[in-house]
Amino acid sequence: MAKLPKPLQNVIDAFERLPGIGSKSAQRLGFYLVNVPEYELTKFADALVELKRGTLKCSSCFNISETEPCYICSNRSREQETLLVVEQPIDVLNFEKMGRYRGYYHILHGRIDPLNNIGPDDIYLSQLFKRLSNNKVTELILALNPDMEGEATAMYITKKIREELKDAKHIKVTRLAHGLPVGASIEFADEITLGRALEGRREL
Amino acid sequence: MAKLPKPLQNVIDAFERLPGIGSKSAQRLGFYLVNVPEYELTKFADALVELKRGTLKCSSCFNISETEPCYICSNRSREQETLLVVEQPIDVLNFEKMGRYRGYYHILHGRIDPLNNIGPDDIYLSQLFKRLSNNKVTELILALNPDMEGEATAMYITKKIREELKDAKHIKVTRLAHGLPVGASIEFADEITLGRALEGRREL
Repeated sequence: MAKLPKPLQNVIDAFERLPGIGSKSAQRLGFYLVNVPEYELTKFADALVELKRGTLKCSSCFNISETEPCYICSNRSREQETLLVVEQPIDVLNFEKMGRYRGYYHILHGRIDPLNNIGPDDIYLSQLFKRLSNNKVTELILALNPDMEGEATAMYITKKIREELKDAKHIKVTRLAHGLPVGASIEFADEITLGRALEGRREL
Repeated sequence: MAKLPKPLQNVIDAFERLPGIGSKSAQRLGFYLVNVPEYELTKFADALVELKRGTLKCSSCFNISETEPCYICSNRSREQETLLVVEQPIDVLNFEKMGRYRGYYHILHGRIDPLNNIGPDDIYLSQLFKRLSNNKVTELILALNPDMEGEATAMYITKKIREELKDAKHIKVTRLAHGLPVGASIEFADEITLGRALEGRREL
């Protein structure tokens, strides 16, 4: 049987555990790194070790941050009236790159997903409700992924605010528009997206 | 502008330098690793550092190995008569997986590629010729990639053996068959492959 040097196999195994990297890619990366100068490998290794030690979750929005609170929460010049809820820290990055949102964020770090045993208490939902109760927020934008779990989480949040949170009843809850992605052709749109695009049509 | 915590950005940068990993994938991997337990990150980091320290190039075939010579070269029960030349260590892995080759290997660690300034002296060619001169090898199998640089390298080796190496003139030089990949359809084969498949046809 083919066998690889243990140190090489270890690196390949480590890559294979990462999402989206198959066994062939892991192999290629392993063999590639054998030829990389040692200081580059050390740099890579140091970056991995530092990743956890040098970051924390902001106690307000729960974004990954170096500082407490994070640079967005500590920026007092943003709009205090809007709060945008996302599932993952990487979503914040996309909104910030887009650059047209000026309010604050709240990161749930997941979504309600009963099939995988993730309930409301497993994500940062109670912290969200707490923020809504003693805050100037007037609009809560739910930027959850448009799939079953995302929709269920959005419904849960809306229901909770409408029915249980006395201090937050006045808050407008919105969600991102559904419709055709820019640049896409109608020919290839699925029926549900097309239906949503029709529903949400706007006057020109 | 969107900015990420420095430790996270460092990890993303490290992934982005790897071949076949784009900026979006690097971002995903970085954010994924933030949620991985610290001991897993340390394990990954240790594997990277150990990669160089724990491996060497076999002084005979130049495969990546833990031992000197490598486990293939030190296996005296393989066929001494055949030597298979490949460009990269990962190619050896594929031949060993296939499991039907019982001879030895020689890894060039590259191929002659004048456009990228890689000449015969930049790969392990002189070492190959030296092995041929004082060896029982009767067949040299060139398993180089079937592209321009691979063909040029194969031609260079053949010419050298025929014209310059007195001790190696008797050696049969062969190369892998070209033809239709198993499972492929003729409809999608390119003309060159189809031509080679016809040339190399065999009686049933």
